[in-house]
Parts: sequence; C-alpha cells; structure tokens
Amino acid sequence: MHDDARDELQDLLDTPPVPTRRPTVAGMEDELYRVHPLLDHGFLRVVDYMGDDAAIVQAARVSYGKGTKNVRNDRGLIRYLMRHRHSTPFEMCEIKLHVKLPIFIARQWIRHRTANVNEYSARYSILDKEFYIPAVEDIAQQSDSNRQGRDEALSNDQALAVQELLRRDANTSYDTYSHLINDTGDGSPERDGEPQLARELARMNLTLNYYTQWYWKTDLHNLFHFLSLRQHPHAQKEIRVYADVMAKLVEQWCPIAYEAFVDYRTGGTFFSREEVEIIQAMARGEDPDVLLPKSDMSFRERKAFRHQLKLGPPKKNS
Amino acid sequence: MHDDARDELQDLLDTPPVPTRRPTVAGMEDELYRVHPLLDHGFLRVVDYMGDDAAIVQAARVSYGKGTKNVRNDRGLIRYLMRHRHSTPFEMCEIKLHVKLPIFIARQWIRHRTANVNEYSARYSILDKEFYIPAVEDIAQQSDSNRQGRDEALSNDQALAVQELLRRDANTSYDTYSHLINDTGDGSPERDGEPQLARELARMNLTLNYYTQWYWKTDLHNLFHFLSLRQHPHAQKEIRVYADVMAKLVEQWCPIAYEAFVDYRTGGTFFSREEVEIIQAMARGEDPDVLLPKSDMSFRERKAFRHQLKLGPPKKNS
Amino acid sequence: MHDDARDELQDLLDTPPVPTRRPTVAGMEDELYRVHPLLDHGFLRVVDYMGDDAAIVQAARVSYGKGTKNVRNDRGLIRYLMRHRHSTPFEMCEIKLHVKLPIFIARQWIRHRTANVNEYSARYSILDKEFYIPAVEDIAQQSDSNRQGRDEALSNDQALAVQELLRRDANTSYDTYSHLINDTGDGSPERDGEPQLARELARMNLTLNYYTQWYWKTDLHNLFHFLSLRQHPHAQKEIRVYADVMAKLVEQWCPIAYEAFVDYRTGGTFFSREEVEIIQAMARGEDPDVLLPKSDMSFRERKAFRHQLKLGPPKKNS
Amino acid sequence: MHDDARDELQDLLDTPPVPTRRPTVAGMEDELYRVHPLLDHGFLRVVDYMGDDAAIVQAARVSYGKGTKNVRNDRGLIRYLMRHRHSTPFEMCEIKLHVKLPIFIARQWIRHRTANVNEYSARYSILDKEFYIPAVEDIAQQSDSNRQGRDEALSNDQALAVQELLRRDANTSYDTYSHLINDTGDGSPERDGEPQLARELARMNLTLNYYTQWYWKTDLHNLFHFLSLRQHPHAQKEIRVYADVMAKLVEQWCPIAYEAFVDYRTGGTFFSREEVEIIQAMARGEDPDVLLPKSDMSFRERKAFRHQLKLGPPKKNS
Repeated sequence: MHDDARDELQDLLDTPPVPTRRPTVAGMEDELYRVHPLLDHGFLRVVDYMGDDAAIVQAARVSYGKGTKNVRNDRGLIRYLMRHRHSTPFEMCEIKLHVKLPIFIARQWIRHRTANVNEYSARYSILDKEFYIPAVEDIAQQSDSNRQGRDEALSNDQALAVQELLRRDANTSYDTYSHLINDTGDGSPERDGEPQLARELARMNLTLNYYTQWYWKTDLHNLFHFLSLRQHPHAQKEIRVYADVMAKLVEQWCPIAYEAFVDYRTGGTFFSREEVEIIQAMARGEDPDVLLPKSDMSFRERKAFRHQLKLGPPKKNS
Repeated sequence: MHDDARDELQDLLDTPPVPTRRPTVAGMEDELYRVHPLLDHGFLRVVDYMGDDAAIVQAARVSYGKGTKNVRNDRGLIRYLMRHRHSTPFEMCEIKLHVKLPIFIARQWIRHRTANVNEYSARYSILDKEFYIPAVEDIAQQSDSNRQGRDEALSNDQALAVQELLRRDANTSYDTYSHLINDTGDGSPERDGEPQLARELARMNLTLNYYTQWYWKTDLHNLFHFLSLRQHPHAQKEIRVYADVMAKLVEQWCPIAYEAFVDYRTGGTFFSREEVEIIQAMARGEDPDVLLPKSDMSFRERKAFRHQLKLGPPKKNS
Repeated sequence: MHDDARDELQDLLDTPPVPTRRPTVAGMEDELYRVHPLLDHGFLRVVDYMGDDAAIVQAARVSYGKGTKNVRNDRGLIRYLMRHRHSTPFEMCEIKLHVKLPIFIARQWIRHRTANVNEYSARYSILDKEFYIPAVEDIAQQSDSNRQGRDEALSNDQALAVQELLRRDANTSYDTYSHLINDTGDGSPERDGEPQLARELARMNLTLNYYTQWYWKTDLHNLFHFLSLRQHPHAQKEIRVYADVMAKLVEQWCPIAYEAFVDYRTGGTFFSREEVEIIQAMARGEDPDVLLPKSDMSFRERKAFRHQLKLGPPKKNS
Repeated sequence: MHDDARDELQDLLDTPPVPTRRPTVAGMEDELYRVHPLLDHGFLRVVDYMGDDAAIVQAARVSYGKGTKNVRNDRGLIRYLMRHRHSTPFEMCEIKLHVKLPIFIARQWIRHRTANVNEYSARYSILDKEFYIPAVEDIAQQSDSNRQGRDEALSNDQALAVQELLRRDANTSYDTYSHLINDTGDGSPERDGEPQLARELARMNLTLNYYTQWYWKTDLHNLFHFLSLRQHPHAQKEIRVYADVMAKLVEQWCPIAYEAFVDYRTGGTFFSREEVEIIQAMARGEDPDVLLPKSDMSFRERKAFRHQLKLGPPKKNS
C-alpha cells in the first residue's frame, strides 16, 4: 500500500509547476514530495505548506497595527514575537507531511492533539510486512538515572542477539496475520474454502514495531512545540530522528522564525525561582559553590543546575 | 490601519506569480487578496489556501489504502466521506482569510475555537472611525416566536430614526475616544501638555458596532461546521452575509466537496427518533395527518416537522 | 502495575464519604471506583464526575437569561438544547474514567482529541502479561460489503484455532520482552551479569492485543460525540462494548440529557437533500417505490435509504 | 438577569451538604458559590471543582507506574512534573467559575481556546445597565516604552474628567439601547404602538465597558497557562485582578501544585541562548558588565536581561 502511495506522490515529483500568487519558498518547492528515509523503512516528506516568514510578519502587523512600526524590521519583529511568546502569528503557517513510522512511535506522536491526521487503517486494508529493527548502535541498556531512557549500548554480540529475537517474533506474528486473513493481496483467498478473518481482528497479532503511515498537518507554533519536546535529549531516539528532519525542513521554510526558535527556545533555559536568585547573586559577584549548598534545592536539582552552568557535579555537600 | 493592511495586500495583487508544484486552484488564484465588500465597511478576502478536492482524496486513500479502490472515482469517494461523516480528510485543506467585521459579530465568530486568529489590537494601536449602521431594510422588530431573532422590518421612517440614533452615539463615543487618547494619528499629542490616556483604557468607550479586523485560518471540516451554523436561517444576518461569501469561495476552491456538503449537510435534515417512526409509517402508506396528533411530540416540534415535510401548519389538534 | 492501581482505587471504595455542596448524583456515588469488567482483562470505572442535569440547565440559563423563562421546565430546556445542537451547556459536565483496554483499541480511542489522557508508560514501567483473545463468538470473517467490518462468525473449530494462534504469538512476544528487559519485577536483573534492554525498546516486541490503561477525562458533549461514533453498528465490537458501558453510566449520571441524546441523536437519522425531497413527496401521498427509481441516488444510497424507511431492498431497477 | 443568576446560586449557599466519595477540598467547599467582588460591578466565584493535589499524583502514577516509586512523596512528584513540564496530570483537575466582567476584558479572556464557555446572550435577553468605570488611581497615561501598556496615573482632576466622560457616554448609549428595544423588562412594550427593535441589533449601541457574564470551565494545566499570561505585569490590570483572585483559589484548591507553579513557572525566568552563555561565564567568575557589551543582544534585550539580574540599567555602551 505505501508503495502505491509512494508512487502516487512520486508522480507529483515530475508534474510541471504551475504559477501561483501565494507565498512560495524556493527551498520548500524542492522539498515537495521528496522522501527523507528514516530508520530502516520509515520516511518523512513534505506534501504541502502554507506561508513563510513574511506571513508571520503579515499576521503580526494586523494585530499590532501601527504599533509595530517601531520594530525596525521583519527579523526584529519575529524575534520579538518568539521572545515574548506571542504565538498566534506563528499559527498562520501550516505544513502537511507524509510520514511512515513504527506503531510504537506513532503512539507517542499522536499525543500532540492540535494537528490533523489521516492514518492508514488496518481495519480497511492489509499492512505490509515491514517492521523496525534498531541498528546495533541503538540497542542500549535501560538507564538507571533516567527511568524512561537508555544508557550505553550493548556489546556487538548482545545487540545482534537482540536484533535476531525482534526479527524472529515480528516475522512469526506477520506469518500468523497473513494466515488469518488468508489473502493473496488482491482480496481473493489464498487457500480456497478457508475463512478470511476480519482484518480489524487479525491486526491485533502484529507487534508494535510494524510500520504505519499517515498524513499529518499542523501549524508552525504547534510544530515548534513538537520539536521542543521531541528534539529534547530525553526524547526517545526513534522519534528524535523524525524531529531532527522536521527541524531542518523548518529551517528552510521559515529561516528567521527557526533561528529565533533556536535562540529563544531550544537553545535557552528556564531557571526556577531559586535558581534565578542564585544567578542574581552571581551577577553581584558571589560564588555559586558557596551559594548552592545553602539552597533548598534537592541534590538532583542542584546537579541539573550545575550542569546547566557548566560547573562540575556537586560535591557531597554542595 | 486597515488602510495600511489593505494597501499592503493590494500590492500583492500586482505581484507576478511564481511557479509552484503545490496543488493549485485556478479560481482561487483569481480570488487571492481580492476584497469582497460586506455590510457598510466590512470585507472578506482570501490570503492563502492549501489543498483542493484532490488533496481530500489523497488523504482518504492513505487511510483506506487499497480499500478505496472499489469506490469508483474521486467524486464518489468525497461524497461517501461526507455522507458517513468521515471528517478527517476534509481537515487536510486549509484556508486563511482577512476579515473586517463589527465587534459584536466578531464576538460570535470567535466562539469557533478550532481556528487560528490574529486580531487587530486596540491596546497597541488606534481604531479607525468606522462603525456599522444597518441598512434600512435590515432594521427589524424583535421576533416573538424566536427569542434570538428578528421579525418584519420597521417602517422606513422608524428605520431612519434608528439609524440616526446609532450614528449619533457611535460618533459621540469615538469623539470621546479620540479626545482621551489625544493623538494626531502619528503618536504625537494633538493638544500639547495634555495627557494621552492609555489606549487599553480608552477603547472601552467605543460602541460594539465599531469595526475590527483579523486574519482567520481554519481547515475545511471546521469551515463546513461554521457554514452549517452561520448560514442557517436562525443565524444573525450580519454574520450570515460573511458565511454566504465564504460558501461561494469554498464552491470555487473544492467544488466536489462543496456539492457533497450541500447535498448531505445543509440541504439535508436530521429527524428525531419519533419523526423517523412517522416517516417509516408514511413509507408504508399511512397519512401523516392521522399519525401526528397521536405522537408525543410537543406542538412546537410538530409544527417544525410539518414545516420540513412541507405540510401546512398543524391544526389545533394535529 | 494495574494491580497496584486497582488496589489503590479499591481502597477508595472503602473510604467514608465526606460532605460536599457540589452537585451530587446518588447513582454516580455508587459507581465511583467500581470496576466494570470488559472483554477478557479490560475494565472501565468512574474516578470522578462534575455536574448533573441541573448543571446543564444552570449554564444554559446564564446564556439565555430571562429568555429561557418561556421554556416551561428543565426537561424541556435540555431537550431543546439537544434538538437545536446548542452544545456548550453539555460541556459544563465532566467525567473522569479509568480504563484498561487493548492497545489496538486505545489507538482508535485516542483519535478523540478533545479529552485529557494519562496513559501507562511502557518507557518507564513494565507491562503485565495480559493480552486480549476474542471470545469464540466474536471471531468473524472479513465483511465483503463493509470493507472495515466483520461478517458471520467462523465455525467453532476454526475460532478455536484462531484463538490458539493469537495466544501462542502473544505468549512468545511477551517471553522475548521479558527476556530482553531481564527484570525480576523489582528492578533487579534476573540473570546476573546480563544486560537489561531499555524498556522503550523492548516494548516494541509486544503484540497489539496487549492491554494498556489510562485515565481519560472529557466533557459530556464530547462524550456524546464519542458514543454516537463508537456505539454505531459500524464501530468495532471491541470498542463498542466500552461505549455501551459508558452510555449506561451517562444514563445514571444525567438521565434527562441521556434521554434527549437517544431521541434526537442516536435514535434519529440524518436524511440527505434528495431523501428529504422524497420524504416530502411521501407526505403528499406519493409512493416511494415509484419515486426512488427516478432519483439520482446511487444503488448503495437507495439501499440504505430503503433500509431506514423499513422498506425491503430495492429491486434491480428501484 | 445577573441578579437572577446571583440569587439562584445564592440559594445554593444555603443548601445542606450531601455526602460524596469524590476528592473533596475543605477550603473549596467554603469557596463554593461565594462571590468575590471585582472592579466596580464584576465578580468571580467557584461553581464546581473536580480533583485535588492527590488527583494529580494519582494520574501521574498511572502513567509512570512503578517508575514513580523512587520519587519519595507526592510533593516531590508534583514538583518533578511541573519542573519537567509533564502537563497531562494537571489536566486531570477541572474548575468551573461564574464570572462577571466588562466586554472588552471578555474579548481578551476568550482567546484562551481550551475552555468551555456559556456566555450571557444579548441576542436572547436584555443587558442590565451596568458598566465599568476605572477607579481614579487606575486612569493612566499611554506608556511610551510598552506600546500596549499604561504608565503613570493622571492627576486627580484629569482622572475625574475621564470618569465623567466615560460615564456620560455609557449612560447615553444605554438610554438609546433601552429606547430601541422599547421594553419594560417583562417583555411588554413601554411605549404602546411603538416597535421593539430586535435585541441582536440594539446591543450594538452599547459601549465595550458594559458587563457581561459567563460560566467558564477549564482544567488546571490550562488555568496555570492563563495565570502565567494574565498575572504577568504586562497584562492589562482589569484582567489581572481576576487572575489574582483565581491564583488565590488555586492555592487553596491544590496547594502543592500551586507552590510548584510559583517556584518553577511564574517565579522563574527563561533565558535565551546568549543569556545562558553569559550566565555560564558568570559562574566561572566573569563580570557581566564586561561580558554584556560584547554580546549580540540588542539594547532592549540587554536592558531586560540586566533587569532580571537585578543589575542597574546598561550604560550607553553596555
């Protein structure tokens, strides 16, 4: 099925362009319908986009009217909006993506509610035999410090053994699925006289690393929110690789907004009330190594704070 | 301010088109940035659009995969989606409008929450002296039967008197506003040495018929929902005129989806459990005039039902 | 884990009640924390609720003010609101549920975006060995007429064979999962010296019939929307059984609103523009068997329409 | 009308409490239906609430399962959730407020889209003659530095003159409104034989400082977002006073979550990429007065940054 879909959009790659008076971004025109392969069988590509940096400015100027004239230029205005979290002008840009991704990642992704989604339905149609097997270097131990994360990689032999097990079970579960629906692919039964189990039931036998796909459409503000969560070092690597490609696409699409996003959001840091008080003391010339042990912060918070200040880890008593 | 905004987009009217490989609708290209005047000073125009009928089909086919092959053609599929309220493929089309409208209408409109909005801010900038005065033929009596509606028009003399009062108070409130902010329009005080009241305060003196404006962006599914509520005969006329222009735009933008919308939504009717039972009896050849008086429906419901069946109003006992 | 959660709420069952001045529904107090078993290992129970029928009326009266005085009583007002799709007063009631359900059903459920969700995280914690195996009578063939549905049940022997295969693969995939995370359940490794694969990776080996659980909170308007889609005969049986229990809960919680929902929503029918024209002709005494063959409706639509009218299926030419 | 509504809830104040097994907060029981007067005629009061601090923990523990056992206690867990912006558990608490507020403030408030609202409808009913006149000390000049804000107060005489003008125009516009609808208050005409203009039209003559009212329901996460924007020093004072009362209510309702909100959100500060680099240099003992002049930050940003560090304003070149 995805092959059909892939081909269909593939055809669009060769369609001759037509004239438009809508805002158009040259780099995005090159991106349209182009597949960015991800993981072992996944991909992401741009299906459509609306707006550009100028569209953000245009919407902001409607809001602020003459009041924005004192902001010298578009870049200054966009950076001002980002800095002060005036998010509505960024909602005026919209992007539509075609994404193929493992089901367990789709389950994380779908939690971003402010988006439009059309997912491939395994009630209607038959899923292909395509599942995700992590690369050797991505097969890592459970982290102790971070309950939801992973730690150092397993040895090469151990990783190969993990791959083997995952592959074996994914194959078995698909063979059973295939047997249950008893379908040749064109809707006719493979084994005459035997039943074809309802697809909505048979699909439950597939493992969570099977690939699904969807069209996903969202606005730039919500996309930035997605990126800030899913490019975060704590995000699962298998979703981070998608977020990283999306970030590069945004950089081409709205370069000024993207630069502001990096400077004022992902590149910046939020400090708590107590941390700000220590930073203020530092500005008066005080020594953080003296201040920190006196604070009410937990060991964990102090450790995280020292890390952000690029100081060494706290000693037992600091 | 709106004049600036109008001019700015006006410039875009003359911008030479550039090539794009995105879905493009010829009729919408002609619509871009073109002002549709509404009421006495309002307008509505298309600033951008994403997708077309084919984009709806494209998204649906990702969902249903091979399962859609048995739906013979695109028109059939779109009508099927509309009939069965599969709304997500319609969310794959997006439109951005620039709207100028009276504040009391903006307050109704904003209740549609699934949309993106940038409104002109009277905290930042100064509102122009533009207010809505209904035309003589729109100045109507309070309806008795419909608590929220209007009835027959007032006499010409009475309507002129109403206009006169509305105009007088709108003028007075603006003069006070203007006096309070003490501004020449370029930020400098008109009367030297006198204070300029904060705009965020002065604006409270304006009447609700003053015009505001915004960029408003939504998807086709939510736009259809807006139309079904705001083109409804019970909607206030001052918002219905905007909805009517939007409907014409959608007809150009996605003609197949629009036709399906008319056939299966606004042109159709929802009948209650009891009404369906009577319709079923009618299909067996029974007479509604005999059936209706026996039903549990209230007089009001029976009246509405007879109206939908194009029967005369109920007699006292039917 | 769910056992912990179950126990925790179990304790609440025995907590002595405290006085409140909030709207309280006796039947719902009995429902609180009580488990409704569903499928083989799933359940649904009420964790909290806000509002009742009177709260809907209370909110509506704020909107309509004195204007609602002519609606004689609360029941009349609630039915009026439902009939005219004035949905906001129904949003003033809120319910919080604890649900345990198979992952492939959770994937359908989560598509209802206007809700709050906290799902058990298999990145943080270890999933129990609990998976869904459909009962013999639910193991059915793929439907031909309805691409997404099921048809008649398989024979007893065939169904037992399907169960056996599903059970075998679910067991195997869990054994591998268990082996990969190498955990005794208390976080310590089972096999000393061997790695514990990160949980966020190991979980991908589980099949889609494994159970997950979540807290799910929504308002009554959105719950009605959920019910109208998920109690529908075309909904998958495995989500329908949850919707059916929810409907019974709503009947206890807001009995007047629920009755109105049945009369004006699920019990009623939407007819298209063409269908309404035929109904109008029927009301004038015309014969549907004469009218239908002349209409522009497709064979499929005519069939569905005749079904709704409780007429026999169309003949070749009607 | 609001008087009716006020009385109705007033009655609830005297209703004897009934037993419930839902989470109940003693302080909130005292708050129920109690009016907090605001501005000259506005108010805010709690109509209902769902959940408490424990409900946040309960939902989080479902998500993280055994994984949360290493977080020592509920307070630690709630603070952890707030610090790491895990917002979904906070969505499990819900509050319903009855608010009376000037229309121009309602227009700001309604921009918070993730909420449920039932507003008094001036299409159905007649608005009371109640409008907002700012107190003398709140009548301030337009700010030069902050385009959307106000500066120092006007002199007493000037403020009295402003009040006089606002009062005059509000009175005039109501007298016209009253004349146009020609209503005695009980629906009967005051001046026999003269028309009653449709309310949906007459309302447009009212000024934006007239009071409206609504029921407003939202979850704790979105309420915190509301507070972070509307308690901000840049928010308009007339909405800030409502936010301040809401903050006090939250402090009673969910004291641990509120404390975390203050420590990690409103009490903290977000620093940009460049600012973090300077803070890191300060931690190494460098002098901000030396570092800042070398940065790429604009004069405005440097000024804001120095303010947050509690340093004096920048000299021309720092």
